[in-house]
Amino acid sequence: MYLEKIRKPNDIQRVSPKNYKVLAREIRDFLIESVSRTGGHLSSNLGAVELTMAIHLVFDLTKDKVIWDVGHQSYTHKLLTGRRDGFANLRSFGGMSGFPKRAESPCDVFDTGHSSTSISAGVGMAHARDLKSEDYHVISVIGDGALTGGLAFEALDNVSSVKGNFIIVLNDNTMSISENVGGVSNFLGKLRTSKIYTGIKESITGNLRRIPSGDDIHDVISNAKDSIKQLVVREGMMFEDMGITYLGPFDGHNINQLVKAFRTAKQAKGPVLLHILTKKGKGYPFAEANPGKFHGIDPFDPNTGKLLRQENPATYTKLFSDCMMQLGKQNEKVVAITAAMADGTGLSRFSRHFPERFFDVGIAEAHAVTFAAGLAVSGMKPYVAIYSSFLQRAYDSILHDVCMQKLPVTFAVDRAGIVGKDGETHQGVFDLSYLTSMPNLTVMAPKNAYEFAQMFLFSSTFEGPLAIRYPRGEALLSYKSCNSKIVYGKAEVMKKASDSTIALVAIGSMVKTAMETAERLAEEGIEATVVNLRFAKPLDLECIRSLKNYKNIFTLEENVKAGGIGEQIAAYLMEQRSRAKVRIFAVPDRFIPHGCVDVLMRELGLDTDHVYEEALKAVKGSKADHE
Amino acid sequence: MYLEKIRKPNDIQRVSPKNYKVLAREIRDFLIESVSRTGGHLSSNLGAVELTMAIHLVFDLTKDKVIWDVGHQSYTHKLLTGRRDGFANLRSFGGMSGFPKRAESPCDVFDTGHSSTSISAGVGMAHARDLKSEDYHVISVIGDGALTGGLAFEALDNVSSVKGNFIIVLNDNTMSISENVGGVSNFLGKLRTSKIYTGIKESITGNLRRIPSGDDIHDVISNAKDSIKQLVVREGMMFEDMGITYLGPFDGHNINQLVKAFRTAKQAKGPVLLHILTKKGKGYPFAEANPGKFHGIDPFDPNTGKLLRQENPATYTKLFSDCMMQLGKQNEKVVAITAAMADGTGLSRFSRHFPERFFDVGIAEAHAVTFAAGLAVSGMKPYVAIYSSFLQRAYDSILHDVCMQKLPVTFAVDRAGIVGKDGETHQGVFDLSYLTSMPNLTVMAPKNAYEFAQMFLFSSTFEGPLAIRYPRGEALLSYKSCNSKIVYGKAEVMKKASDSTIALVAIGSMVKTAMETAERLAEEGIEATVVNLRFAKPLDLECIRSLKNYKNIFTLEENVKAGGIGEQIAAYLMEQRSRAKVRIFAVPDRFIPHGCVDVLMRELGLDTDHVYEEALKAVKGSKADHE
Repeated sequence: MYLEKIRKPNDIQRVSPKNYKVLAREIRDFLIESVSRTGGHLSSNLGAVELTMAIHLVFDLTKDKVIWDVGHQSYTHKLLTGRRDGFANLRSFGGMSGFPKRAESPCDVFDTGHSSTSISAGVGMAHARDLKSEDYHVISVIGDGALTGGLAFEALDNVSSVKGNFIIVLNDNTMSISENVGGVSNFLGKLRTSKIYTGIKESITGNLRRIPSGDDIHDVISNAKDSIKQLVVREGMMFEDMGITYLGPFDGHNINQLVKAFRTAKQAKGPVLLHILTKKGKGYPFAEANPGKFHGIDPFDPNTGKLLRQENPATYTKLFSDCMMQLGKQNEKVVAITAAMADGTGLSRFSRHFPERFFDVGIAEAHAVTFAAGLAVSGMKPYVAIYSSFLQRAYDSILHDVCMQKLPVTFAVDRAGIVGKDGETHQGVFDLSYLTSMPNLTVMAPKNAYEFAQMFLFSSTFEGPLAIRYPRGEALLSYKSCNSKIVYGKAEVMKKASDSTIALVAIGSMVKTAMETAERLAEEGIEATVVNLRFAKPLDLECIRSLKNYKNIFTLEENVKAGGIGEQIAAYLMEQRSRAKVRIFAVPDRFIPHGCVDVLMRELGLDTDHVYEEALKAVKGSKADHE
Repeated sequence: MYLEKIRKPNDIQRVSPKNYKVLAREIRDFLIESVSRTGGHLSSNLGAVELTMAIHLVFDLTKDKVIWDVGHQSYTHKLLTGRRDGFANLRSFGGMSGFPKRAESPCDVFDTGHSSTSISAGVGMAHARDLKSEDYHVISVIGDGALTGGLAFEALDNVSSVKGNFIIVLNDNTMSISENVGGVSNFLGKLRTSKIYTGIKESITGNLRRIPSGDDIHDVISNAKDSIKQLVVREGMMFEDMGITYLGPFDGHNINQLVKAFRTAKQAKGPVLLHILTKKGKGYPFAEANPGKFHGIDPFDPNTGKLLRQENPATYTKLFSDCMMQLGKQNEKVVAITAAMADGTGLSRFSRHFPERFFDVGIAEAHAVTFAAGLAVSGMKPYVAIYSSFLQRAYDSILHDVCMQKLPVTFAVDRAGIVGKDGETHQGVFDLSYLTSMPNLTVMAPKNAYEFAQMFLFSSTFEGPLAIRYPRGEALLSYKSCNSKIVYGKAEVMKKASDSTIALVAIGSMVKTAMETAERLAEEGIEATVVNLRFAKPLDLECIRSLKNYKNIFTLEENVKAGGIGEQIAAYLMEQRSRAKVRIFAVPDRFIPHGCVDVLMRELGLDTDHVYEEALKAVKGSKADHE
């Protein structure tokens, strides 16, 4: 009833303080109901309701700038800036994004999706404001999980250079997607339980410094009891010593306290960190009890918290989980590493069975990889499981620490290709390009569930750097009979035509598309050769050379065209003076928005229908050429 | 006289303590004399003499493992492990590397080159040791500059997971290559000047905790004066709270104190950080006075500290410095960002003239880029100057924060291509591949000094993400008359042959090679078309299509073949059904070691002689085909 009245930015400011709690409840009810229908991120959004309301109450977001780290917690922000109707089509193709998008609203000032970028961006925006003598506030909202990313630390190291107001909101829910680990978490743990927490919340101005007319406040501290003072100084010291005024911790679900805290922070000169304690899934018992499950969730029954459609168990992630169990049992040198994604990557089971050989390093992809290099150089057999689009963050560690030293680290690159509803920031469509350009690296992709298992078996005795990329979702169970032994650098010919009309050369998920195309061509009496590359690097040049005299060669990959396997194959065929007509099917040179995977694949012309039509045209064309 | 007796690892342990100082002097004299002849890194090595000696005195490096962060400070380590003779050919092709190399000595346990990797690798090695129940020490030696890299922080966050002995040596010389900046530096500044420094160095065991039989030691602290105790606890707290025992600071040039410190650290269970204060250039007055100059230096006169050959002023770096001055004057929105490389990138002059618009963010490439994105989104015009091989560390920030939002950030990618003596880790041969696969990014490379200036002029009004890559060293002054206006996406035809025998399509530095090849072909009566691409992305497809009917097309680039412009052009020609014979001249698929640039280019077949010979062969071959 209050939520309905919020149609545009700042409308919330007309709600009277006594109704804040009701509004918070309305927002939560709306989010639960809406996400239960569309799917989406829930736990983090339920945790950030009051925090977001307080920001909108204290700041004017038509001019003040909030950067949402990662951005999946921005649903309340979307609601409060007039995008309620967008929730009906949340994360659908053409619908509202699940992340902040500048294209969507002037109140979204920086697009996010990957973790730990908000402080860097905020420091940049604050400097720009000061250089241009403009007058607005910059607020970076970052979770305690994202704070373990090196980028956030690099930014913190730079924050003291900001002379004007700059507010970092540490949304501390003690979790990434799974529970947080490591030194920073320990450090924050101390802050959370410090006496200040209870002591300060009645008097939030107590530990201010560097705030206009803050001298008297500072005196208050100096005259306070030694133990308190020491704690004030001591507990926030890591931040204070970096030149950041530390305020907190605050109860992240006490809206009135938060409003006061933001009003105070707003007056500060220079950087301020507001430490706010929140609870993931707050206000929805199922999510509170199991925030991981409701982190990103498919449609569910709001009354029971149960998924409407039980997840198909035969995902590649699930298979990876099985493979790792097997590898772990076979070889005690096998160790597994995740960057805060034990559940998502399928490593949870390994972690329970082999806790001493499992490492969750937090949101720290580069460290995960260089750490694996250290393990490998000392005789272990590390498996690093990171989603394709996050592995980009470890580019230099893969190249400089693993490949250069030829270390036997295996990268399990899940979510490679189009991932769907998370959109631009999460599509895993660059890895074939950046990985195949790295010397000493072997890059594979399986066509189906059986080959997936074979590839991980292959990895177990492979002695160099290896990446195995595979898509999100269900593992293909077709083509079980195509199961020739995996030989280093060798492709698999799945169908051999009796003539040289057309060859379809595909990798990974696109082998299915190639086979389906071939099957439909067969219905038209056209034979097609189908090659399952298996290895993106090294390419099976002998096999490709054998196709040299084909009239038509199609390459298919779920990766950008530039630097992908299509260009590499076409270039090789060119060098070999092949006269084939080559068509490269790949992701075009633009960022791919959110939407269902099959919708997107159709949009990109990577669906069987399109490939088949093009194949038919090509074959007819080459016959015409011939006649 | 003592140095001569050190022929293999552990030989130093036969030197008696009273002669340590003499040995240190001998090492310094050797390094100064040797580097004055060959060139190399000097300041950091002079600063780490005692630190390295102490490690070699206390540990057995035939089994204990030292990881040298960055690794340019490992010269004394090389000396003490029997590689004195290698210094005669330091950093020459086939000679000793200037960095640790596992291939060079079993005492080099992890190859380094880029900053901030040592703690990650060390944590991995320590875990491997503990999992395998082996018995050796792991020591990561990292500078205070490298500590600002996010990777180091990600690793620190993980250090507390190590249960066995693990020693982090913080070699604190208050500098990266230039002076350190930021919050961490401030924090360390406090540690450096804390009372402990003088108080503790007489009694280094004073602040031990978690060390066997350390209880009594801890009692000493508890009973000490409150102020001291508070400092002990307070000053190392950032580390202590992350689960790392902090010891220090120690005088890094007091060898006996260092030996004691390492002996103590060696007994600790779990991670220990030894904070050691050193002076860059120590013991060589010219280097002490100007450590930046002697960071990496060409051959010089040891008596005067003067370079034997005055550096040619017309480097691309110098031109960039000029361009930035001009851009800075023209447009007050222009800001410049470096990651601890103001001198190396040529931004020092800009920093002096426009201090408020210059940002040195420390060794933090990813932050540099995302910070620039924040500046750009708020209306500034940022230029980010980072060497090619270091820019890899910001891959995701370029893609996710700049390109995805189409922000007008210009990357000045210096040291692109073969850089020479720094070897594998520093060759800038991947950027064309990884940058051209990023949507929305424009990638350029100039053929000569004039075009370089034109490209930066072009950048000043360009409104999207832009990278300009250029090589190390002298800027080419030839081909001044080829100066057609730069048009977005358009190549420049520098020579147009009257027939279609051969076309040489080159980018950046390789345009010279193409032109020289064409000139030599002309002497044989063969006309060649020469295309200067200018844009690696977008490629000028119209221009390339116009070459479709050439008999021979050579592409030339100083970049790896996979994903480079050669493959992209060949693939396009293949799609266009060209029947040209295409040859791609690019860096082969392996890591390129150290050596002079021209020696390496010959080794790689990228020199004019080789291209010319191949061109001649190709032209003769195609004539023969024709006859």
